[in-house]
Amino acid sequence: MAKTSPLAPKRFPKIPAIAGVKLATAAAGLRYRQRLDVMLVETAPGTTVAGTLTKSQTASAPVQWCRKALKGGVARGLVVNSGNANVFTGKAGERAVAKTVQSAAALLQCPKSQVYVCSTGVIGEDLPVQKILDGLPGMQSALKAGNWENGARAIMTTDTFPKGCVRTATIAGKNVNIAGIAKGSGMIAPNMATMLAYVFTDAKIPSRVLQALTRASVDQSFNSITVDSDTSTSDTVLMFATGKADHKKVTAVSNAHLKNFCKVLNEVMIDLAHQIVKDGEGASKFISVTVTGAASDAAARRIGLTVANSPLVKTAIAGEDANWGRLIMAVGKAPDRVNQKKLKIKIGGVLIANGQGAVKGYDERPVAKHLKGQNVDIAIDVGAGKGKATVWTCDLTHEYISINADYRS
Amino acid sequence: MAKTSPLAPKRFPKIPAIAGVKLATAAAGLRYRQRLDVMLVETAPGTTVAGTLTKSQTASAPVQWCRKALKGGVARGLVVNSGNANVFTGKAGERAVAKTVQSAAALLQCPKSQVYVCSTGVIGEDLPVQKILDGLPGMQSALKAGNWENGARAIMTTDTFPKGCVRTATIAGKNVNIAGIAKGSGMIAPNMATMLAYVFTDAKIPSRVLQALTRASVDQSFNSITVDSDTSTSDTVLMFATGKADHKKVTAVSNAHLKNFCKVLNEVMIDLAHQIVKDGEGASKFISVTVTGAASDAAARRIGLTVANSPLVKTAIAGEDANWGRLIMAVGKAPDRVNQKKLKIKIGGVLIANGQGAVKGYDERPVAKHLKGQNVDIAIDVGAGKGKATVWTCDLTHEYISINADYRS
Repeated sequence: MAKTSPLAPKRFPKIPAIAGVKLATAAAGLRYRQRLDVMLVETAPGTTVAGTLTKSQTASAPVQWCRKALKGGVARGLVVNSGNANVFTGKAGERAVAKTVQSAAALLQCPKSQVYVCSTGVIGEDLPVQKILDGLPGMQSALKAGNWENGARAIMTTDTFPKGCVRTATIAGKNVNIAGIAKGSGMIAPNMATMLAYVFTDAKIPSRVLQALTRASVDQSFNSITVDSDTSTSDTVLMFATGKADHKKVTAVSNAHLKNFCKVLNEVMIDLAHQIVKDGEGASKFISVTVTGAASDAAARRIGLTVANSPLVKTAIAGEDANWGRLIMAVGKAPDRVNQKKLKIKIGGVLIANGQGAVKGYDERPVAKHLKGQNVDIAIDVGAGKGKATVWTCDLTHEYISINADYRS
Repeated sequence: MAKTSPLAPKRFPKIPAIAGVKLATAAAGLRYRQRLDVMLVETAPGTTVAGTLTKSQTASAPVQWCRKALKGGVARGLVVNSGNANVFTGKAGERAVAKTVQSAAALLQCPKSQVYVCSTGVIGEDLPVQKILDGLPGMQSALKAGNWENGARAIMTTDTFPKGCVRTATIAGKNVNIAGIAKGSGMIAPNMATMLAYVFTDAKIPSRVLQALTRASVDQSFNSITVDSDTSTSDTVLMFATGKADHKKVTAVSNAHLKNFCKVLNEVMIDLAHQIVKDGEGASKFISVTVTGAASDAAARRIGLTVANSPLVKTAIAGEDANWGRLIMAVGKAPDRVNQKKLKIKIGGVLIANGQGAVKGYDERPVAKHLKGQNVDIAIDVGAGKGKATVWTCDLTHEYISINADYRS
């Protein structure tokens, strides 16, 4: 295993139990030896669920199953394995999902349509599903509340640290909890990794409303990060609401009682998304790119992601080089309108470029100092409108090449 | 200067003079010392011109000038400098172009609208235009036919070898010559490099027809390569036809007499485009990606470029790893339709994946052997239609990071 990312948090957070959620894990030996690689989650009867899934044209068999299951909006169980992504595995892959669902549904005594399945790992190899099936009964009897860190570890592949987050929100004056775990070295992922995130709350929220909240929050968080521009076949975010909290009923996204919940949900998703970037393969810097003055918020995000995906920008930052010409290039390659005569660029808060070119007499020293730190802030105003967005990425280093030029073998 | 690319051709080709074309070069000290950095080309009265320019929203001042000049369709002169791209330089950049045009037009005794200007190099710094102006009279008196290699050297930045190509075509039974020079480490280019190509012929072709031929050929060649997905602010292809050859008049693209010329022009442009990929920063492998079975030829090219831009595909090839799961991932992230159940993948001609997953009993040894060579062939059939395209790229190596994490400083 690679050494822990220099950007990793000091420790896994203390996450209390969420009423109605129990977890168990196992080391089924799917690919790694002596390492947790399967997670089973049981959620209480009445749990609603929402989710967003990869748009890949070569999406995995489990993603295709989840897409169907999400139409029901109810969840009782979740089975996740690492080590094998069950992607491009044809009929055998579909059968593996069906067997897992059937087995978990029998153990949890629920309809099959309430069981969710996710897989992450190598692409194109048959999933040794019997190992998972063999492990499920033991996991069911070991289910326990608050077992978050083991869950976060069981879903890791090339991750160098387990990722978790918890916050408390209020709905109509009552506290509700939101806890999440995630894995990934990017939204945009290497062969054996992919982005998975599971968020749980005890709030009581109808699945239709939960879906709208989840989508909005994913846009601000997971859809605003990139490590290497490679979209995974297995990206999955699932959000579960057990309804165990005792608060006033909410029936619509527009409900004022949901305002704080939305804000806190965003915080949780953004925190998890940042942890994924901080575990980006080979990452040595965490980079925030804020784009303002775009034609729309969507345009701002596209421009931001274009900058964040530019290998030349990412290598310059790895080299701690205030090479802002590459930012000019990267802004220009997005399809969205840029007004060169008003284009402004700041690095670490220092205005470097301002419409007519470099700021006269600009002092590179504070910028050079900023670039030596672990957190790099880039702000770009494209002078074409009022749209704004922030996206996050990491730098592109020798370590990325080392990890990926010799990964599978 | 970096050591010569391992993929470089053995020597610069022998290119004869093209009637009506003379070149001169100078070492003006724009950025590098003792190195050719300005090229002046004079084309004979009556020369038609066509071109394609970067679509970047932050296009350089010279690109903006060329876009206007191309409307006239006539060329007498071309001034190209390396070392400074004259990008994001505001009014000063526009003035630098205007002065260069004025000076060259006076020396060549032609209207200003017949002088083309290109710059390549660092972004965002004022062009020291006086050094170019001081060099022009001396260059004018040194103009000579057949001076291709010096021209190819004068336009280099991070290139490790000069790039040239020549072919003979026939129009209505008469021979015409097509010669070209290019520079770049990718269509998609680092801070101080960019893709420039100049193609000259003695054929007699109206500018409107020349424009259509040029655009079609650029799509098959320069628009089908990528090194690192970063679109330059300065990409420029200009095609000059001096009309000195003695052949039957051609008036339309559809003219049957142009069939061979089109084919040979494609060969010249593809050869130059391949040379750019072979000089891709840090390149150790030349990779061809052929996509068939797409919804359209355009879809095939998009899918091909998505694969060719995938850092995970490129690092796997750098590591000589037959990691075809990454190809499945990369195919899936293009927006175009893929039929997973019919998706086929070959590496080095060996069928690896076939609809329902990996080919049973597939022997990895010939594939591993193929990947150890310098030329890697990937063929993908996406099973969704009849569209096809081939694109070219290089691998992504430690050397790319070394070059770009410490380039400007």
